[in-house]
Amino acid sequence: MPIGYSFNTMTRKDDSEYIEMAITQAKKGNTPFGAVLVNTNGEFVEAYNTAKNDGPTAHAEINAIRKIDQLKFEKAQDLTLYSTVEPCPMCMTAIIWAGIGTVVYGATIEDAAEFGNQIDIKAKDIAKKSWYQLEVKEGVSRNKCTKLFTHEN
Amino acid sequence: MPIGYSFNTMTRKDDSEYIEMAITQAKKGNTPFGAVLVNTNGEFVEAYNTAKNDGPTAHAEINAIRKIDQLKFEKAQDLTLYSTVEPCPMCMTAIIWAGIGTVVYGATIEDAAEFGNQIDIKAKDIAKKSWYQLEVKEGVSRNKCTKLFTHEN
Repeated sequence: MPIGYSFNTMTRKDDSEYIEMAITQAKKGNTPFGAVLVNTNGEFVEAYNTAKNDGPTAHAEINAIRKIDQLKFEKAQDLTLYSTVEPCPMCMTAIIWAGIGTVVYGATIEDAAEFGNQIDIKAKDIAKKSWYQLEVKEGVSRNKCTKLFTHEN
Repeated sequence: MPIGYSFNTMTRKDDSEYIEMAITQAKKGNTPFGAVLVNTNGEFVEAYNTAKNDGPTAHAEINAIRKIDQLKFEKAQDLTLYSTVEPCPMCMTAIIWAGIGTVVYGATIEDAAEFGNQIDIKAKDIAKKSWYQLEVKEGVSRNKCTKLFTHEN
């Protein structure tokens, strides 16, 4: 799969635009879970949850991180991972092992827990245990992302 | 890759014997990290860490869980995952998403942290946040597993 590019130029969009792309991914997979991994030029890879076919580890974020080598970057800390839903501890830890510097998400684990089992540990609490500084931004287009669970959008 | 079978019969071995098999896996991959996933008949799949080639999510436990469909089981809670080293929060959460009931490991995260970065959250603390009961057994052949980090065995 080739690297995707932002539409106009090699400049970074706003957070909400990448979340919008993650929402598009989620819908493409017919799940609430989509993710986009972006470098400083605005180049990106994207993925959705494929657990139904690929087993329990195939969350959107894991699937995106598995494409990390398709992106150009000097250091992984310059990368931002956008996700429709707060990364679970599996995905958040994978983000740290990958060395990704910034995480932005829409719906929270608490939002997701209304629709199914969740492991109640906040992404920020995992980030605090990392050996490097991560930025974690919660609630970008939160309502729109939460609606993915009920196919309202 | 075919399902592996225990050597003699379809009965379960002792924990230390499966840890021994996990150690063999670790050495095969030239990493300290090996894992074996076993059903109640003693049938198993096994894996080692392939992060060097497959990226940061390819821990031994994740690689083993990705083979879970090769095992026969009625419910995943009957499965036991053996690992040379305490599963990190990524792997421990994957174990929960897979619904695996029992986790047995040798070296601890504290042991591993002497040789590289670790995310300091105990497997048991992740397990406590699960929606079902997991058994987590620490320290089986701990010294032997810890020596994998220094190639002493």
